[in-house]
Amino acid sequence: MGYSRYKYEDLKKLCNVAFQRFGFSKVDRETITDVLLLSDLFGIESHGVQRLVRYHKGIKSGMMKVHAEMEIVHETPVSAVIDAHQGMGQVVGKRSMEMAIKKAKNLGMGMVVVRNSNHYGIAGYYARMAAQEGLLGMSMTNSEAIQVPTFGKAAMMGSNPIAIAMPAEPYPFLLDMSTTVVTRGKLEIYNKRAEALPLGWALDSKGADSSDAKDVLYNIQNKLGGGIVPLGGSSEEFGGHKGYGLGVSVELFTAILSGGLTANYTHMNNVGGTCHWFFAVDYGIFGDKKVIEAGMSKYLQELRDSDKAEGQDRIYTHGEKEIEAYNDRLANGILVNENTLEEIRNMCNYLDLSVNDYLKEI
Amino acid sequence: MGYSRYKYEDLKKLCNVAFQRFGFSKVDRETITDVLLLSDLFGIESHGVQRLVRYHKGIKSGMMKVHAEMEIVHETPVSAVIDAHQGMGQVVGKRSMEMAIKKAKNLGMGMVVVRNSNHYGIAGYYARMAAQEGLLGMSMTNSEAIQVPTFGKAAMMGSNPIAIAMPAEPYPFLLDMSTTVVTRGKLEIYNKRAEALPLGWALDSKGADSSDAKDVLYNIQNKLGGGIVPLGGSSEEFGGHKGYGLGVSVELFTAILSGGLTANYTHMNNVGGTCHWFFAVDYGIFGDKKVIEAGMSKYLQELRDSDKAEGQDRIYTHGEKEIEAYNDRLANGILVNENTLEEIRNMCNYLDLSVNDYLKEI
Repeated sequence: MGYSRYKYEDLKKLCNVAFQRFGFSKVDRETITDVLLLSDLFGIESHGVQRLVRYHKGIKSGMMKVHAEMEIVHETPVSAVIDAHQGMGQVVGKRSMEMAIKKAKNLGMGMVVVRNSNHYGIAGYYARMAAQEGLLGMSMTNSEAIQVPTFGKAAMMGSNPIAIAMPAEPYPFLLDMSTTVVTRGKLEIYNKRAEALPLGWALDSKGADSSDAKDVLYNIQNKLGGGIVPLGGSSEEFGGHKGYGLGVSVELFTAILSGGLTANYTHMNNVGGTCHWFFAVDYGIFGDKKVIEAGMSKYLQELRDSDKAEGQDRIYTHGEKEIEAYNDRLANGILVNENTLEEIRNMCNYLDLSVNDYLKEI
Repeated sequence: MGYSRYKYEDLKKLCNVAFQRFGFSKVDRETITDVLLLSDLFGIESHGVQRLVRYHKGIKSGMMKVHAEMEIVHETPVSAVIDAHQGMGQVVGKRSMEMAIKKAKNLGMGMVVVRNSNHYGIAGYYARMAAQEGLLGMSMTNSEAIQVPTFGKAAMMGSNPIAIAMPAEPYPFLLDMSTTVVTRGKLEIYNKRAEALPLGWALDSKGADSSDAKDVLYNIQNKLGGGIVPLGGSSEEFGGHKGYGLGVSVELFTAILSGGLTANYTHMNNVGGTCHWFFAVDYGIFGDKKVIEAGMSKYLQELRDSDKAEGQDRIYTHGEKEIEAYNDRLANGILVNENTLEEIRNMCNYLDLSVNDYLKEI
C-alpha cells in the first residue's frame, strides 16, 4: 500500500464540497470534515478520510439521514437524552458534547446520552472538545457488533471505545482506546496486506483463535460468528473478562441509559442505531483548577521520565503520539493510501467532481 | 494450602471484637467488618479477613489512624473532596459513597474524591452500595505502586481497580477489575505455592518478563524496579498501552482530582496516602428507571445465552460468580486458608483473645 501526502487545507476543501453534494448544511459539513480530518491529523487513518466513501454509501442507502433533526427526549440541568433520528454521528456528537460542556460549566457536571445515531468518528474528538474548554471530558460509543464475550463465539459488543481527556502541559492527556485487543481497522490493514494475524486477536466462527483476517472480517460482516477478542484476550488468564466487562459497561452507558440499541441489534435492516455517551466535568468543583492541572502535568512528566525497560528509550503518555502526528501532518501533509485515494476518486466521479481540482500530491 | 470453612456470623463476631480492641467505635468496626467479609463472601480471598493482620500492623505502626476524623475540604451540590487524615479506607469510603448517593438522589449525580486514606478493600463494595439504592455506582482507588507503564521498568501506578455496578434482574451487573493483567494477590498465591508465573504477568527489575513471583513481590515491596504489567500486556501488540491508560486515568480521578498522592508517592515514610473516587448516577434522569433496568437485564441475559465457543458451556456476566460464591459461603461457611488462620491466631494472642472462643471449623 503506497501512501501520498496531501495538504490539510486541500483535503478540507474536498471533504466540504463532497458533504455539500451529499446535501449537508454548511455547519454540518464543517463539523463532519473537522472530525474526519482530526483523525487523519492524529495519524488514525481508519477513522479519517478513508470513511468518506462508507459515509457516502450509508447516505445513499438511507441508513444515514442528511436532514435528520436531533430531538431532546429528556433533559435535566445535568443531563440529556438525545434521539439522533438516524442522523450523522459527528453532527449529533458535537452538539451533544456542547450540551454536556454547557451543563458542566453551570453545575459542575453534564452527561448526555444519544440513541439512534451512526458512526461518530474518533471518540477522542469529543473528549478533547471538553479539554479545550478547560474541562475533563469523556466519551464512549457502541458500534457494530465485533467483540466476543469471554467463552463465547458470537460478537455481542462493538469495539466500544472509551476516550478520556484532561488538560495538562505541555501535552493534554488524551486516552482513546477500544475495549477490544485491537480495532477492526487493524484487521483490515492485515487483510489488505494479506498478512497472518498474531494469534490472540481474533476468533473464527467456532470461537477458536484465528490468524485469517479475511475470514474474520467476512464473518463479522455477515454475522456468522467469531470476531475480535476483548482487551486481555480470549481467556481469563490474561484478563480477557476485564476487557469484556469494559465492553459491556460501554453498552450500559451508551445504549442502555439512552434506551437505544445494544451492539447485537445495531446495523440491521439498514438502521445503524449507534449510541453515544458524553460527559464533561468542571474540575473546579474539586479545588483550584490551576493546581489540579499542574498536578496532572507533573505526574505525566514523571511517567515519561520514569526508568525505561532494557531496549526501550521512550515512555509515552496518552495523546503524545497524536500531537506529534498532528504537527507532522499539518506541516508536511496528511498521508492518504492509494486505495483510499482511488475510492475517493470514484466517489468524486459519481458526484461529478474532479479530485485533481482539489488534491495535489505534495 | 489447606482451607477450612467458618460461619459468616462467627467471623463477623471475631472481626468486630478485634477491631474493638484496635480502638474503633461500634459504627466504624461494623463498617470495616462488613467490607472485609463481603469480599470473603464474594470469594475474593485477597481482600477479606486475610487483611486483618495487615491492618493490625498498619494501625500499630501509625500508618492507619483509628481516631482520624475525615474532613470535607470542598463541597458543591454535586461533589465533595474529603481528606481522610490517614483514617481507615473502609470508614471514609463508606461515608463518601453515602455522600455521593445523597447528592445523586438530589441532583442526579454525585462525585466524591478522597485523599490521604488507606486501603479500602474491594472497590466493588462501594459501587454496589449505589446499586442497592437503585443507582448506577462507580468507584476507583489507587494503591501502592505495582503497575509498570508500557516500555518502562518502574512501578508508577497501583493495581488501580475500576468498579461499576448497575441494578438488573436476576443479578445486578458488578464489574470490579484491576487495570493490571492480574492483581498482586494472584502473585502472592503463586509465591505461596512456589509455582512459576505465566510469562506476560510481571516484569523483573530490568523490565523483562519474569516468572519469579517471589522476586517480583520483593522488588515491588522494596521499590527495586519491575512489577505487574497493565491489562493487555507489556507491549502494544496486545493493547498494553490501553491498560496503562486506564491505570493513569484512575490516578487522575483519585489522586489528581483530590489533590492527593499518585501511586509513585504513596506508602512511603509510613504514610499510606491512598486516594479514592466515588460516583453515583440516578439514571432516572435518563428516563423511566424500570425500563432502563429491564433493558440492562435483557442485554445481560442475551450475553449469557449467546453462543458458546467450542469446549465452553457457560458465559458469565460480571458479578454472577460473586453472587454464586456469596450464596455458597452464607450457607456453607467462608473458606479461610490455614496460613491466614495462623496469622489471625497470632494476632489474637497479641490482643489477648482466644480464636477458639469465636471460630469453630464447620
